[in-house]
Amino acid sequence: MALYGGIDAGGTKFACAVGTAPDDIIAEATIPTTTPDDTITRTISFFRKFQSQVVAIGVGSFGPIDLDHSSETFGYITNTPKSGWAQTPIIGKLGRALNVPLVFDTDTNAAALGEAIWGIGKGLQTILYLTIGTGIGGGVVIDRKVLHGMLHPEIGHLRLPHDWKTDPFPGACPYHGDCLEGLASGPAVAKRWGTTAESLPSNHQAWSLEATYLALALTNLILTLSPQRIILGGGIMQRETLFQSIRTRVKELLNGYVHARQIEVSIEEYIVPPQLGQKAGVYGAIALAKGVPELG
Amino acid sequence: MALYGGIDAGGTKFACAVGTAPDDIIAEATIPTTTPDDTITRTISFFRKFQSQVVAIGVGSFGPIDLDHSSETFGYITNTPKSGWAQTPIIGKLGRALNVPLVFDTDTNAAALGEAIWGIGKGLQTILYLTIGTGIGGGVVIDRKVLHGMLHPEIGHLRLPHDWKTDPFPGACPYHGDCLEGLASGPAVAKRWGTTAESLPSNHQAWSLEATYLALALTNLILTLSPQRIILGGGIMQRETLFQSIRTRVKELLNGYVHARQIEVSIEEYIVPPQLGQKAGVYGAIALAKGVPELG
Repeated sequence: MALYGGIDAGGTKFACAVGTAPDDIIAEATIPTTTPDDTITRTISFFRKFQSQVVAIGVGSFGPIDLDHSSETFGYITNTPKSGWAQTPIIGKLGRALNVPLVFDTDTNAAALGEAIWGIGKGLQTILYLTIGTGIGGGVVIDRKVLHGMLHPEIGHLRLPHDWKTDPFPGACPYHGDCLEGLASGPAVAKRWGTTAESLPSNHQAWSLEATYLALALTNLILTLSPQRIILGGGIMQRETLFQSIRTRVKELLNGYVHARQIEVSIEEYIVPPQLGQKAGVYGAIALAKGVPELG
Repeated sequence: MALYGGIDAGGTKFACAVGTAPDDIIAEATIPTTTPDDTITRTISFFRKFQSQVVAIGVGSFGPIDLDHSSETFGYITNTPKSGWAQTPIIGKLGRALNVPLVFDTDTNAAALGEAIWGIGKGLQTILYLTIGTGIGGGVVIDRKVLHGMLHPEIGHLRLPHDWKTDPFPGACPYHGDCLEGLASGPAVAKRWGTTAESLPSNHQAWSLEATYLALALTNLILTLSPQRIILGGGIMQRETLFQSIRTRVKELLNGYVHARQIEVSIEEYIVPPQLGQKAGVYGAIALAKGVPELG
């Protein structure tokens, strides 16, 4: 029987798996992210053991990555600040060694697909997944396919209303200052308050401000994508009280304009935590592999 | 041969057509929008003549409309301020009289589909269409299908950065004040400057402010949907100088973050006027009809 490979290529570790679905994983490995050569060599060794059975491998990678098939650097991790990893042709190296079709996407898109196919988004048509941590990223899955369009979404960089009187912090994004990531990522919270997000008590004003910015972003995303479910993961969302304050603020911001049961009646089931946790990325990478067009 | 019907049900007129494509229209009619009974009766009379050949009719309607198949008022024009039209079961009336499958959608979604299939979006996978006039509405077409998700997008109501020092106008949206529509629709411009948009000369500061708000919205939409082309129609966009100022501001706002040829090299072909003009809606309605699932 055909097997699929999945790689969640993260800045700390490469999570690898072989199987067909979360309940049919026949092997897994966790490889620490050291140098590109060492990490990729160890990844290749893991998949070599299954080379006769694995028909495709999905790779969800940390970025920025080049997903443009017409580009000379397609399949590269490009100008990442991660030491030693800039301009790494990860797909080329894996493809030459393993000689199977590879499907390349962002780590966030892979996790979004994992949650959409096998997690809390299962059975729904339009899913939005956001991760809020060191950075803010988002993935959209429509009809079980990741939305790419021109390139891929960069939801972390949405521009939002910013009330400078309430929050004089100018934002931490080197590109845009006070975009969503500049205002609400972990490092932005740390820079604004002079301490890590985890160390701020739940009744600190940092959290109501955080809920406001995330709710403003979600409001815009609801008005644009009309997702059937919104999944919020990442380090910042470990603060569980955030979910309820975000839900309340989203309803206030929409102000009765969107007449949907999901908003008006059951917002607790609409804006939710992920279900697959740390595994969303590697399972999603398997789903990417299964979606290789030539395999139907 | 099977024919399809299209109805662009607008607040001023119902544009009706029968055919299979813009270059294969066998009959057209324009019916003024008077009372619901009169308008719908005349629409039915037009289509009766082709009843043996028309296998489905698409309806793109002014709104708000109810698109939720599980709702008791599915197929209704709901709480419109247009006199006499609130709570009109337009799909029920047409369906009972004509006895063909009907596909119901918003006027903006129909126009977006028309441009995506037969207009300036032809051949592309992800298209965003915005109309900026009395209101602001948007439609998204992905893989030749209109994006619905939970309900349908309401892009006119995006929240944007609003610099109250530069622009103390509080916004004109009864739901959200200074959302996109509240700041940049025709009535918002008229209320802010005390005269109609058409009467403001192209060097008036109104237009650079307008370009800024529209560019902020487009920036967020690019970061969310990653469309392959953005089509801007509606009365406000008749001011042709707006296109160039919007393109310039979008590039400034993205600030080099999105590495796509469409943004960096050929933004003149990326943010463009519609190609089908007034016909986008009725042609798009025919495309809606052709997309009836049971017809493949």
